[in-house]
Amino acid sequence: MSDNKRPLILVSNDDGHTFEGLKALTRVAREFADVVVAAPMVHQSGKGSAITFMSPLRAFKASQEPGLTTWVVDGTPADCVKLGLSELTEGRQPDLVLSGINHGYNTGVATLNSGTVGGAIEAAVHDIPAVAFSLGQYGVEADMTPCLPMVRRIIKHVLEHGLPRKVCLNVNFPYGKGEFKGVKMATLGMGRWCNETERRTDPFGLDYYWLTGHYKLDDPNDTTNDVYLINQGYITVTPIKVDNTAHELLNDMGSELGFDTPANEHSSN
Amino acid sequence: MSDNKRPLILVSNDDGHTFEGLKALTRVAREFADVVVAAPMVHQSGKGSAITFMSPLRAFKASQEPGLTTWVVDGTPADCVKLGLSELTEGRQPDLVLSGINHGYNTGVATLNSGTVGGAIEAAVHDIPAVAFSLGQYGVEADMTPCLPMVRRIIKHVLEHGLPRKVCLNVNFPYGKGEFKGVKMATLGMGRWCNETERRTDPFGLDYYWLTGHYKLDDPNDTTNDVYLINQGYITVTPIKVDNTAHELLNDMGSELGFDTPANEHSSN
Repeated sequence: MSDNKRPLILVSNDDGHTFEGLKALTRVAREFADVVVAAPMVHQSGKGSAITFMSPLRAFKASQEPGLTTWVVDGTPADCVKLGLSELTEGRQPDLVLSGINHGYNTGVATLNSGTVGGAIEAAVHDIPAVAFSLGQYGVEADMTPCLPMVRRIIKHVLEHGLPRKVCLNVNFPYGKGEFKGVKMATLGMGRWCNETERRTDPFGLDYYWLTGHYKLDDPNDTTNDVYLINQGYITVTPIKVDNTAHELLNDMGSELGFDTPANEHSSN
Repeated sequence: MSDNKRPLILVSNDDGHTFEGLKALTRVAREFADVVVAAPMVHQSGKGSAITFMSPLRAFKASQEPGLTTWVVDGTPADCVKLGLSELTEGRQPDLVLSGINHGYNTGVATLNSGTVGGAIEAAVHDIPAVAFSLGQYGVEADMTPCLPMVRRIIKHVLEHGLPRKVCLNVNFPYGKGEFKGVKMATLGMGRWCNETERRTDPFGLDYYWLTGHYKLDDPNDTTNDVYLINQGYITVTPIKVDNTAHELLNDMGSELGFDTPANEHSSN
C-alpha cells in the first residue's frame, strides 16, 4: 500500500488516456506524491469547461499499483476532475491537480476552448491548486522530455506554497524555437480567429465545415502576452481566474444602462 | 427581400432549436433587426465554450422568410456563433449576437459551463456585442413573457451604444420569486458545488454517475453577486470578460516563482 502521508496529485488531460503527455506528467507527479489519474476515454480537445449532466458518466479503473491508480472516464476533462475529486480519490482530497501535458499550445483566447485548461479551472473552482501544461508539438510522437525540469520545479513550488484561491496556472512550452530562452509570466494574448471556417462538399453534394483559421492578436505591439513570448522562444506562465466578472465595468455600465450597482444598492429601483 | 439597412442580429442558444426561449428571443430581435438564427440541433447544456474541430460541422437551413433565416447546426453554441459569423450570415457582419433565452439560470461559476454564455463569449472574442439571457424556469413549458420588456430594453441599448471590446453581458431573470424586484448589476457569485456526484448501479451491476449537487457561495455575506440577488428577486446583469488573466497577480507570482514578469522583462533570465 502507498504511504498516506505523501501528498496526493490528481492528473488529467484532454488528449485522452493514451497520450504521452499524460504519461510524462504522471511520471513526474509520482516523484512527489501518490497519484490518481482520471483521464478521458477519447480525445476531448476543444471542450473547454464543458461538463456532462444530460447523460450519466462512466469511470473504469484501468490499473492500480502502489501509489498510482488510473481511471478512464467517458467525459470531458472537467468531468474527470469533478469525478476525480468526488469519487475516484476515495475520500482523499488531492493537494494538487495537474492537466496535460497537452500536445499543442493553449494560449490567448483559445484557453477558453481548451479542455486542458478547463480541467485546471475546474480544480480551481474547488479551491484546489491546479496547473495546466502544454507543449506546442502536436501529434502523438511529441517529446515531452525538454519540459520536465520546469514541470518539476512548478509542481514542487505549488505543492509547497499553494496558489491563490480560484486561480490556476497555465504553462506553455514553445516548440521548434530552439532551446528555451527562459520563462516569463505572461498575459493571455487577446485576439481573434480569421478565416475561421473552411467549407467543403461531401461525396453526396452537401456542404460541411471545418473550424480552422489563423490567430490575429488585437495589439501587435504588446510584448507581454503568451502568444508573442512563446513565438520568441520563452516558456510562459499565466495565472487564470475562475471569476471572469468585469468588476471594473460594473459601476460605469450600471450608470449607462440605468441599473443599480452593488455600490448604490440602497437607491430606488 | 429584407431591408439591408436594418441591423443584423445573430441568435443562438444552448437548449437547441426547438425551445421556446430561442423563439421568444428571435421574436423580440425581429422588432429591431433582420435576424439569422444559428441554433444547435440538439441540447448543448453544459458545453461552455466548447468547440468542434476534430470532426467537421454541418449546418442545415431550416427556413427562410423576409428578414429571418434559421439554421440548425450539429455543434455547440460556440460552433453556432463561429459558423454564424463566418458562413451563415452570407457576408453581413452581425451588429449584435444574442444567446438564449436559456431555460435555467446561468450564474456564479456555472457560467463557465454554460453553453448560453459560451455563445455570447464567442461573439465577444470577435469583438461583436453580445448578450446571454437566462430564466430560472427549467423545462420546455417555461413562459418567457415576463422577461421580454427587459430583453427589449437591453437589445435597444446595446444596438445603440455597443459594449466594451472583449466583454459580453450575462442577464438572469429570477423565477418563482413573485414580480421582479428590479434589476441590478451583479458580480458572478463565486462558490463551489457540494455533493457533486451521485453514484448509481445499472441493471448489469456496473456503477455510473450523475453530476448533481448544490451550490455553496464562498462568502455568504456578499450581497453583490448574482446568486444572492436572484434569490432576492432581482434581475441581474453581469459583464463578463474574454480575458481571464489574473493581471493583478502577475508581478507577485513572478517574484514568488522567480520568473520574469512583463514589468521587468529586461532583467536576466
